[in-house]
Amino acid sequence: MAVRAVEWLDGAVPAVRLLDQTRLPDTEAYLEAADVETLIDAIRRLAVRGAPALGAVGALGVVVAMAQGAREGWDDARLHEEIGRLRAARPTAVNLAWAVDRMLPLVPQGHAAALAEARRVLAEDETANRRLSQLGADWLLERCPRRPLRVLTHCNTGSLATVAWGTALGVVRELQARGLLEIVHVDETRPLMQGSRLTAWELQADGIDHVVQVDSAAPGAILRGLVDAVVIGADRIAANGDTANKVGSVGLALACADAGVPFVVAAPWSTVDLATPDGAGIVIEERDAAEVVSWSGVATAPAGSRAFNPAFDVTPARLIDAVTTERGVVEPKVRPDMRAVHQPA
Amino acid sequence: MAVRAVEWLDGAVPAVRLLDQTRLPDTEAYLEAADVETLIDAIRRLAVRGAPALGAVGALGVVVAMAQGAREGWDDARLHEEIGRLRAARPTAVNLAWAVDRMLPLVPQGHAAALAEARRVLAEDETANRRLSQLGADWLLERCPRRPLRVLTHCNTGSLATVAWGTALGVVRELQARGLLEIVHVDETRPLMQGSRLTAWELQADGIDHVVQVDSAAPGAILRGLVDAVVIGADRIAANGDTANKVGSVGLALACADAGVPFVVAAPWSTVDLATPDGAGIVIEERDAAEVVSWSGVATAPAGSRAFNPAFDVTPARLIDAVTTERGVVEPKVRPDMRAVHQPA
Repeated sequence: MAVRAVEWLDGAVPAVRLLDQTRLPDTEAYLEAADVETLIDAIRRLAVRGAPALGAVGALGVVVAMAQGAREGWDDARLHEEIGRLRAARPTAVNLAWAVDRMLPLVPQGHAAALAEARRVLAEDETANRRLSQLGADWLLERCPRRPLRVLTHCNTGSLATVAWGTALGVVRELQARGLLEIVHVDETRPLMQGSRLTAWELQADGIDHVVQVDSAAPGAILRGLVDAVVIGADRIAANGDTANKVGSVGLALACADAGVPFVVAAPWSTVDLATPDGAGIVIEERDAAEVVSWSGVATAPAGSRAFNPAFDVTPARLIDAVTTERGVVEPKVRPDMRAVHQPA
Repeated sequence: MAVRAVEWLDGAVPAVRLLDQTRLPDTEAYLEAADVETLIDAIRRLAVRGAPALGAVGALGVVVAMAQGAREGWDDARLHEEIGRLRAARPTAVNLAWAVDRMLPLVPQGHAAALAEARRVLAEDETANRRLSQLGADWLLERCPRRPLRVLTHCNTGSLATVAWGTALGVVRELQARGLLEIVHVDETRPLMQGSRLTAWELQADGIDHVVQVDSAAPGAILRGLVDAVVIGADRIAANGDTANKVGSVGLALACADAGVPFVVAAPWSTVDLATPDGAGIVIEERDAAEVVSWSGVATAPAGSRAFNPAFDVTPARLIDAVTTERGVVEPKVRPDMRAVHQPA
């Protein structure tokens, strides 16, 4: 898929070019962010989303901040304040903070060195996605007897959520490339419909057979034997394997555990947060009620309705069969320790 | 609550008056059905829905069919064919067929006798709902130590889904009447939003505190300890306690089982189908893809997307702590047999 969610624009005023994902699938529109405020706004309103893509924005965003600081004559304190605001634009995905932190030592070295490091972050993400997808597909094919596979996924974890290829959707693409994929059940992923708007759009572009379903149809489909495996992405993986991901993930894991269907998390190693021992330490972002009580400007609930709108939930390690990363596969159900990576042969 | 979803209109041309629930919460509009075709259309497009309300429509609908037959000179075969079409308008809720079958012996006795029986069906539903709500509240209060209770519910099971009062929402109302309800978590209930459109509307009218949430937020909320009990309705309960209800129900049951939170089904005895031994024998209605891939005329997925749209799922008896009916409470997890009713003291 040729579409890139995050790209660098070189020029007199350097900028990050973002595909505005709030307008998909209707409109393929891009926005150019040449300042920190525009980047933060794009992150908060989810014009760009997906943990690995947020890592890319964090890395390139530091370069944007440096260029803006040079134009506007910021002192060092102001520059680091702005970089800190960018780092905190969304609290749950670790990749944003991870990428910003990785860039910090480069800031004193100037534009060229920082941009080179940011480009490495992007290149590594694509390489990692390809590798973790292969390892995830290998792991699944060892455990799922039925051919070809029927895979259920949640939210969007494809090209749009990463620099390229995808994580959970990367595993799907790998299975398709091997001729071993039958169909993808795409959870629509309320409230913002990243599944039906974005994942279905990517799968359609790739000619991968799929059906869209409401999120709450997933447990019934899993218990009825319509699904061979569930593969999701991650926004933050604690040291014991507890995984924060898009709200609705833990319900899939419960259904998989009940039905004996493999539940797999696919994420680059940059999503692993060894400093957080378990899920209890992960901050769950709560978002605005408006996302829940209206859709596309039409009210879905009576005026004045309050909403409970957690953007994520935490799936405990005991419900996760495998986490596939570019470093290898971890099996948290067997051993809840992300350091216990099975090195691929 | 004064609103009645289903009422009889006497007159030269007798009719059933239905609150058109597809237009809520924006508009409180009524439609009058004086012929079988209009009734079937209203049932299929969910202008009227909810298993007990469908029972009321089935009972009154037979009287409508008899009056239409008299006006249009139908023979007996035609009358029974039309009644049969009404009976089959939706396949999963047993109450529709149950009410029609109960009316059949009255058909030869004429309009007055049939109407009297239909009115009994309606009156009994309201009485049953009040009783099963009391029994359900008693059962919950014996098991939930925390006061007041935080209850999660799915779909709409209130006045709009029944003749009056409600089933699962009747239990909620009973707790509120006893001063023992803190808050209701209302699943929005995709794809047709019966939770956010209808349940929130009823709770707002009654001044009962509540939050609307996306369906997939429920398992996380249950696992985080934010909910003391889940209470849902039912469209058909098999002899062993397996329960068909709005899609998404089984996911709630799995979360409750994992978290040790009571999972309660509230339904009148007319929902119990002793002729069906278990859930494997329940037909799950699949509805049109358009319900999933668009909302209020706005596409939520790329043009041409296929959807998987089961309207119901089946919760196995092993995940159900209690079924409260007007005859008493059954505990399928302990004994999977709907005949094992605990008679209330």
